[in-house]
Amino acid sequence: MSLLTVGTVAFDKLESPFGKTDKILGGAATYIGMASSLLGVDTAIVSVVGGDFPQEYIDLLLSKGINLDGMEIVKEGKTFFWEGKYHNDLNTRDTLATELNVLETFNPVVPQDRKSPNVLMLGNLHPLVQKGVLTQLDQRPGLVVLDTMNFWMDCAWNELMDVIKEVDVISINDEEARQMSGEYSLVKAAKKIMTLGPKTVIIKKGEHGALLFQGEQVFFAPALPLEDVFDPTGAGDTFAGGFSGYLAKTNDFSFENMKRAIVYGSALASVTCEKFGTESLQDLDREGLIHRLRKFHELMDFSINL
Amino acid sequence: MSLLTVGTVAFDKLESPFGKTDKILGGAATYIGMASSLLGVDTAIVSVVGGDFPQEYIDLLLSKGINLDGMEIVKEGKTFFWEGKYHNDLNTRDTLATELNVLETFNPVVPQDRKSPNVLMLGNLHPLVQKGVLTQLDQRPGLVVLDTMNFWMDCAWNELMDVIKEVDVISINDEEARQMSGEYSLVKAAKKIMTLGPKTVIIKKGEHGALLFQGEQVFFAPALPLEDVFDPTGAGDTFAGGFSGYLAKTNDFSFENMKRAIVYGSALASVTCEKFGTESLQDLDREGLIHRLRKFHELMDFSINL
Repeated sequence: MSLLTVGTVAFDKLESPFGKTDKILGGAATYIGMASSLLGVDTAIVSVVGGDFPQEYIDLLLSKGINLDGMEIVKEGKTFFWEGKYHNDLNTRDTLATELNVLETFNPVVPQDRKSPNVLMLGNLHPLVQKGVLTQLDQRPGLVVLDTMNFWMDCAWNELMDVIKEVDVISINDEEARQMSGEYSLVKAAKKIMTLGPKTVIIKKGEHGALLFQGEQVFFAPALPLEDVFDPTGAGDTFAGGFSGYLAKTNDFSFENMKRAIVYGSALASVTCEKFGTESLQDLDREGLIHRLRKFHELMDFSINL
Repeated sequence: MSLLTVGTVAFDKLESPFGKTDKILGGAATYIGMASSLLGVDTAIVSVVGGDFPQEYIDLLLSKGINLDGMEIVKEGKTFFWEGKYHNDLNTRDTLATELNVLETFNPVVPQDRKSPNVLMLGNLHPLVQKGVLTQLDQRPGLVVLDTMNFWMDCAWNELMDVIKEVDVISINDEEARQMSGEYSLVKAAKKIMTLGPKTVIIKKGEHGALLFQGEQVFFAPALPLEDVFDPTGAGDTFAGGFSGYLAKTNDFSFENMKRAIVYGSALASVTCEKFGTESLQDLDREGLIHRLRKFHELMDFSINL
């Protein structure tokens, strides 16, 4: 059972009330790959980096069992770079720098032996790039999940609509759902987005959890309350990696199983928030994950006789 | 099994993006009384109104089975009045008028036959008034629940600390929990508030649900996602009424049962949001409540084999 992800591998430079970092390993595909590999799924990344991307990071990703055959290295180019500073509440942040670099001309190529994944995860990239990956596959995957952001709604709406109608699941945050649908109510927003193509809509609310909509069904998973949120960078991508990774691993795309996938995604995302960058996710083992899932179960478990 | 509530019975004048009202029935004790009476508990209010309070509202409260022997009517006085206007997001509001009127000299008197409730609900009032009710009882109730707000933290901190150390459960919103504890993290805030007296801390997050903390245990109940939030006035009080009413009815103050109580409170609060004031709560019957609880169960139900 396999997951194919197209997304960024990047350098991040982060500042939070708890400290700051130099350039460290970041990018959506990095978090998605690491989260899904923890679930024991055969996971591969299609991405691009520059000649400045250190062998150390490549070795780290490979050591996690992430297949990098589809990660192009543009020797003369520079890796995508993002710098951000979080405010005291850790819910809002300022982007200090965004250097697209090699991402600007990124033309993803799916390796021949990765053209039949069970699940395809289209990370937040230009909709044309997302569509380009989808059309390279030998057959339609059992499930296609798409992430996007307000930026593409502003500047590539038609292309976004064109790829969205091809996917099964869309995963976006509350503000993006509101922008995409023109509805303030998230229930109404989800219903409207379903008419654009995806049968399933996930609305991420950061520290306030995530909602899963499919037809008339709704499921909610809270974010695990933490003593300290250290750095939320990558939490949404970790969530997506846990979600799509669990579904790829189990190859069961029922609503019941998607609920489990949401819980796996939320549990993994809570780990990512506890240290800078990928640090805490790197150190997580199967036992740590099970401990986290138990906490989730306790947090949500109740019984009522009706 | 009985619940005694001290709190406001008031006139509210409301404006939301969906319309506006004249002076209508409001007040914390009104919502708490109505919510708890729906659960079949013997519920009584200690409060005060003016001579302007219409017989129609008194009849309505009595028809819901709410005991009003402890509701003083000050013939020459005017009923407490609050006017507010909600912003488009319905999460924020401006207070346009607050007229304390008879509340200013409110000296609660607990009727003789109401001095041994199973559960005492101390609604949001001056801490001295809350304390005054507690000391009038023949014996300490099985459970004492307290609601308060930032206003009392600002202007009656010592009196608030004096009553808080006597209660079992405190129910406040996230901003109030942060102010009371000086901690941004709600996990840390709850722990700090526990050192002030209450063994159990409920932190209400409005549309983002509610957290229940007791020792190291945490439970979370989401708010039911609604197509439209029409008017959130009274949702927090309805929640408190459902919570304390369910505990009074079952007379079981274990953490497991408090989780159920939180779900009852959340289900009832979602009803209150669907129309102006107490309108939708008035119309709710047992069947409607069970339907709502089923929706809650669906919203949170998942199974994972660990």
